[in-house]
Amino acid sequence: MNIIDIIAKKRDGMELNKEELEFFVKEYTNNHIEDYQAAALIMAIYINGMTNEETKNLTIAMAYSGDVLNLSEFGKNIVDKHSTGGVGDKVTIILAPLIASMGIPVAKMSGRGLGYTGGTADKMESIPGYNTGIPENEFINNIKKIGISLITQTLNLAPADKKIYALRDTIACTESIPLIASSIMSKKIASGANKIVLDVTCGSGAFMKNLSDAEELSKIMIEIGKLANRETVCIITNMDQPLGYAIGNTLEMIEAIKALKGDIPKDVQDVVLELGAYMVKLVGKGDNIEENKNKLLVNINNGKAYNKFIELVKQQGGNIEYIKDIEKFPKAPIVKEVLSIKEGFVEKINAEEIGKLACDLGAGRKTKTDNIDMSVGIVLNKKIGDRVAKGEKIATIYANNKEKAEKTEQEILKIYRIGKDQIKEKTIINIIK
Amino acid sequence: MNIIDIIAKKRDGMELNKEELEFFVKEYTNNHIEDYQAAALIMAIYINGMTNEETKNLTIAMAYSGDVLNLSEFGKNIVDKHSTGGVGDKVTIILAPLIASMGIPVAKMSGRGLGYTGGTADKMESIPGYNTGIPENEFINNIKKIGISLITQTLNLAPADKKIYALRDTIACTESIPLIASSIMSKKIASGANKIVLDVTCGSGAFMKNLSDAEELSKIMIEIGKLANRETVCIITNMDQPLGYAIGNTLEMIEAIKALKGDIPKDVQDVVLELGAYMVKLVGKGDNIEENKNKLLVNINNGKAYNKFIELVKQQGGNIEYIKDIEKFPKAPIVKEVLSIKEGFVEKINAEEIGKLACDLGAGRKTKTDNIDMSVGIVLNKKIGDRVAKGEKIATIYANNKEKAEKTEQEILKIYRIGKDQIKEKTIINIIK
Repeated sequence: MNIIDIIAKKRDGMELNKEELEFFVKEYTNNHIEDYQAAALIMAIYINGMTNEETKNLTIAMAYSGDVLNLSEFGKNIVDKHSTGGVGDKVTIILAPLIASMGIPVAKMSGRGLGYTGGTADKMESIPGYNTGIPENEFINNIKKIGISLITQTLNLAPADKKIYALRDTIACTESIPLIASSIMSKKIASGANKIVLDVTCGSGAFMKNLSDAEELSKIMIEIGKLANRETVCIITNMDQPLGYAIGNTLEMIEAIKALKGDIPKDVQDVVLELGAYMVKLVGKGDNIEENKNKLLVNINNGKAYNKFIELVKQQGGNIEYIKDIEKFPKAPIVKEVLSIKEGFVEKINAEEIGKLACDLGAGRKTKTDNIDMSVGIVLNKKIGDRVAKGEKIATIYANNKEKAEKTEQEILKIYRIGKDQIKEKTIINIIK
Repeated sequence: MNIIDIIAKKRDGMELNKEELEFFVKEYTNNHIEDYQAAALIMAIYINGMTNEETKNLTIAMAYSGDVLNLSEFGKNIVDKHSTGGVGDKVTIILAPLIASMGIPVAKMSGRGLGYTGGTADKMESIPGYNTGIPENEFINNIKKIGISLITQTLNLAPADKKIYALRDTIACTESIPLIASSIMSKKIASGANKIVLDVTCGSGAFMKNLSDAEELSKIMIEIGKLANRETVCIITNMDQPLGYAIGNTLEMIEAIKALKGDIPKDVQDVVLELGAYMVKLVGKGDNIEENKNKLLVNINNGKAYNKFIELVKQQGGNIEYIKDIEKFPKAPIVKEVLSIKEGFVEKINAEEIGKLACDLGAGRKTKTDNIDMSVGIVLNKKIGDRVAKGEKIATIYANNKEKAEKTEQEILKIYRIGKDQIKEKTIINIIK
């Protein structure tokens, strides 16, 4: 078997078999296949597509290209959640301790932000002292001890996916549904859970810009899950505007802490409860989704989720005084309010554009090695459907530089579309299982 | 402008404009674009194709990516020939001195062999002392002094083509008509001629396996030539069986020397005269192709072409005693005759398979750094249409190793198809101008 023949086969639109995909993944991971050969194959896959069988075989090969976490000591059913990425997405920070507070073990590995989408690992690091980089044995011990650990991807999980993902970014091959599906599912399979709830974001701030793509991606991931013996549910959620009000690492952490204390934005609550209810169901702790949501809400309101979060932060070295008193978090030096120049209803807030503005303020990375400014970002004071008077505050900018703040203000005024129609946004668009 | 946008455009099947193709060629030549990005773009070009306008713009950009030879001191019209490659192709060795013997300047740069196709530069080096690597000023001086020089590609001509060509080979993107056309024409444009005669080989031993591909390639190259102000004629020639009888460097040199002395195989003569007649026509030395062929034949028969070859070899340091007495050439230690096990007419001799056998004997390179054994190869004693008796010699193997010779013998018996039909092969298939 040789890579040139494999490239030629896919170039000609033929289906690659399991052995050929395994050969590619193994040899590329071992650096026996050159980046330019992988690039040619990936472009051929992008243009000519892959069958579900090919996507599944690629996924399994990537999942087993490195370590595969074994979580069986924590029970027969281990559930994990994952989001395809968005702007203002602080769901994991709330949902992980909430699920753990239900007595369900949470072994969560979260990514870092890149481009206009943020990453949970970065957000956790806004808490002084919190260590996302603990070794595997400590990760396992924390789950044993307090039922939860939340780290970044420090283990050698799906290294093939890491290489292919980084390559796709440089060759205009990110937006391929089979490649997105295999990337997500390979990491989830390697992460050790056998029950998976996926938040498939859809809209201007997501990879999937329209519902039919989001549904196609969901169906492929569920199919891969089936073939890999991982029961998977996809919740398609709205990412036309940012989720919640805050965008930026510390700002989102504060919003998440408030949520754990019971003050939770409606759309964030919708996503947290929907995902959470399916997670509870998949581990066999309740078949009725509405009942599960109520149980979860109880654990927010009685402080159990908040207490689990305090435990988690303490266990991983974070200073819990910041959680107890959010005023302790360092604030950006420049705080600028954006006042509406029109009156009416907010009709549109493009999430991608808001995400890019926050990134430009220093909240995100343009390249993998960029530093992040934890304190900067944007808080939306009005969201779609809200009534706005002329001169009323629509957003607040947290910046480290006056010029940047002024530039951002002008951009936000352009991004907010204010008109006559009061639009009602749906947070949960569809559930595919 | 950035390469990711350019890749995405071609990925989506859109036409790249002149500036985008120039940007790619320039930045890739300067190593500012990575091989994997070029690979992704080339695969997208392979799958989605290129318009003639794109092919022309790519060609011109590659042609001007390095030095462009200026041959205007030798006259208004400078003619060059090129073959798309084949097995047993010794045409240049005969044609170059023949054209020079007509008083037409010949500034010839020839490639080396790779894979099953041989290269004129290697064949010239079978003459002890002959230097294919002289510098540009000597190349020019030789043309001034004796009207001809034949070297290999030592100048920095079309470096973008060199990089792209080498890359294509490793990513299953060689067989793309627009990429083949732009590769050939970019080198020809950089080589300084303004009149070009192309031998477009067609058949089992050529890149173009069928006539419609050969015609498509010819039309694109003529179109590029027009747009680049280079009058181009394509002669589609038969490469279903090897050209002439000899395959292997010294063996082909001997056949070429014999041809220059008047003993020329019919198919080799057909190609030499057809190409030569158009070269004479393009430089304005005769409009009638049949008359031109006769004039060329005269210069073979009166020894003028042979004498020009002697001059060329002498000028570039070769030992002319070998030309005068071909018995001086070192012979392979093992000479094995292949005797027919059937009787009938030769119906088929797959040129690619014969070329690969010669390569395996040591006559060619499998990778660019392989060494060549000048003396080894195969002489076909029977060609398509010839009658063969049982036990009659059909081929002779020149090997440096008994086992290789025996293995080759078995293969040749399989490659020769002997049957009842006396097939008449046409050497010149079509002329496109």
